[in-house]
Amino acid sequence: MALVTLLTDFGWTDYYVGAVKGTLLRLAPGVQIVDLSHDIPPGDVEAAMFLLAAAAPTFPPGTIHLGIVDPGVGSTRRLLATRTTDALFVAPDNGLLTPLLAGAEARSIERPDLLLPGSGSTFHGRDRFAPAAAFLARGGVFEALGPEVPDPVRLPLPAPWREADGSLHGRVAHIDRFGNLVTDIPAAWFVGLPFRAEVGRHAVTRWASHYAELPPGEPGLLPGSLGTLELAVAGASLAARWGVQRGAPVRIRRA
Amino acid sequence: MALVTLLTDFGWTDYYVGAVKGTLLRLAPGVQIVDLSHDIPPGDVEAAMFLLAAAAPTFPPGTIHLGIVDPGVGSTRRLLATRTTDALFVAPDNGLLTPLLAGAEARSIERPDLLLPGSGSTFHGRDRFAPAAAFLARGGVFEALGPEVPDPVRLPLPAPWREADGSLHGRVAHIDRFGNLVTDIPAAWFVGLPFRAEVGRHAVTRWASHYAELPPGEPGLLPGSLGTLELAVAGASLAARWGVQRGAPVRIRRA
Amino acid sequence: MALVTLLTDFGWTDYYVGAVKGTLLRLAPGVQIVDLSHDIPPGDVEAAMFLLAAAAPTFPPGTIHLGIVDPGVGSTRRLLATRTTDALFVAPDNGLLTPLLAGAEARSIERPDLLLPGSGSTFHGRDRFAPAAAFLARGGVFEALGPEVPDPVRLPLPAPWREADGSLHGRVAHIDRFGNLVTDIPAAWFVGLPFRAEVGRHAVTRWASHYAELPPGEPGLLPGSLGTLELAVAGASLAARWGVQRGAPVRIRRA
Repeated sequence: MALVTLLTDFGWTDYYVGAVKGTLLRLAPGVQIVDLSHDIPPGDVEAAMFLLAAAAPTFPPGTIHLGIVDPGVGSTRRLLATRTTDALFVAPDNGLLTPLLAGAEARSIERPDLLLPGSGSTFHGRDRFAPAAAFLARGGVFEALGPEVPDPVRLPLPAPWREADGSLHGRVAHIDRFGNLVTDIPAAWFVGLPFRAEVGRHAVTRWASHYAELPPGEPGLLPGSLGTLELAVAGASLAARWGVQRGAPVRIRRA
Repeated sequence: MALVTLLTDFGWTDYYVGAVKGTLLRLAPGVQIVDLSHDIPPGDVEAAMFLLAAAAPTFPPGTIHLGIVDPGVGSTRRLLATRTTDALFVAPDNGLLTPLLAGAEARSIERPDLLLPGSGSTFHGRDRFAPAAAFLARGGVFEALGPEVPDPVRLPLPAPWREADGSLHGRVAHIDRFGNLVTDIPAAWFVGLPFRAEVGRHAVTRWASHYAELPPGEPGLLPGSLGTLELAVAGASLAARWGVQRGAPVRIRRA
Repeated sequence: MALVTLLTDFGWTDYYVGAVKGTLLRLAPGVQIVDLSHDIPPGDVEAAMFLLAAAAPTFPPGTIHLGIVDPGVGSTRRLLATRTTDALFVAPDNGLLTPLLAGAEARSIERPDLLLPGSGSTFHGRDRFAPAAAFLARGGVFEALGPEVPDPVRLPLPAPWREADGSLHGRVAHIDRFGNLVTDIPAAWFVGLPFRAEVGRHAVTRWASHYAELPPGEPGLLPGSLGTLELAVAGASLAARWGVQRGAPVRIRRA
């Protein structure tokens, strides 16, 4: 049976999560629903983008990923469906799928029979996104969703880069629950020992392969689980200690 | 296979959610469990009532909804099961099902073989509610649960009303994660433009069909996703800005 | 189809939960995944231990329980799989399974084809634990996971004890969402009325069978849902009122 993952900023205290699940199950009986997260900060499209791009590759081929962080609900922003060789994605056309667009086909969901006659224009999760995902879960033809979209919206994310002398430049792409700073700098670029990694006025010179290898209280640089470099301190939040937020510039050079 | 939704105030840090799920799966093998929420504020029966009444209609016919917010656990309050044309509900008889009682048959769950010999009288979710829901999930006969209940407990919720001059009176029935004020006033009653909507000493005169239509920082009135009027500000919490809580009176009149 | 429960300290704002689920579903298609909790405080092995030991017995025979609270990820700590007459468990060898080890067979997960070539050594949940649980879910032979472990790590938890005069000594083993103090003292040991139960400088002398039986504001002692004694106050958090934390000594004697 079809597998649909669910990623939203609805939180767990409203009826929104339940209504999306109920609609999926009503329109695609037997569908298997997997919660990725409903605790994306309200309206934080980039946080949802990061999570979905990191989690989606682990799922089996054919999985349908439904991502709803949609501050523009009801406006003229498009409802997007995309298809890659591995998976299908349904999300507002607001950049949520940015890293997943390379090589993907994109359609604007406009098929009239997929628009539920719901109340108002404030809950497309229930009235439009869930019916579209259910259509795909029932084996509906991707091309039948609506017209092609040649130019889906992309978040303007800066790419990491290397200087001629090997210095690396990037940013904190994500701060996880443990307070680890996940950068966008590929671990394969690492300059080798000795090195100096700087985030604002803070710096680390210690390398580790895993958290427990770091001495208590001493931050270090590690190869993270997404293939990028990560800054962390064992058993505590480096983000809290340093007061660092997502987007902070990161620089790594030989020392 | 039977579908059981789960709505509780157990939170996600205790074993209570797991024990209810485990009992359901042990007594009704293969049942599909759907989390609606476990983050209802402790003991907040009205919040659970609102969520369940809003989410339940989206589910397929025959769904079993198990709602457990039960400050009276172990007391003489009844354990209720109700049946509508669409769904089955299991919950403490404390008003949680209030808006779902119209036209419903109600039974008091008293069948002795559904009472697990659990420890103590503090966890009926595991020891009584889950076995009853599992019984229904296995196709058990509704009438066999126990005697009819002619007078299930109802929360004394005030109904919205209209004055002769068309003025509308209601209350904030729910505040969602985004800080939107969901009222109980039907959107179909809307007085038309120009209007003035008052919540306490605050007022709005702007109408919008969706959040993004509101200028930054300017609150407005919208037709919400439940068919009632809603007050909101785009990208921020109107409840926090105004300091409004659930139950606050709302008045809307022509201006 | 196999049932896998999931208990982690990953929280709901990272991709970690999704990646573990995706890997399970990719490697064991059709597996039924049940969320126990992802909100264990970061690195709190004892909290996870308590929750899993309390929830696991409610599940059907053959359930696979995957518990990941793993501050030592990437170090030399073993990856443990255990088998009891009822269930299978997969977790880091850090004490998470302590109360479940009696009579259990234990293996160290070392089978090379179960180690995904993931990025780095910081996410064994995705790269090692999920593949091992998926192997078991597909019907893989338990003994084939790796060598026997004669001495799995146990948390050094003090046991409750009775004095010759019948006085009971124990500790607060868990504080639940409602602020109830769950002790490790068996309810069957209860000294009878009248009694005095002390936690630090606080004491209660009231007995109740359920929360609602307690007069407003008056704490009492109850037989809790795990077969141990519990201290609580109706409709409020006794832990917050008293400022009590997990581990606080509890003493109960005849008065």
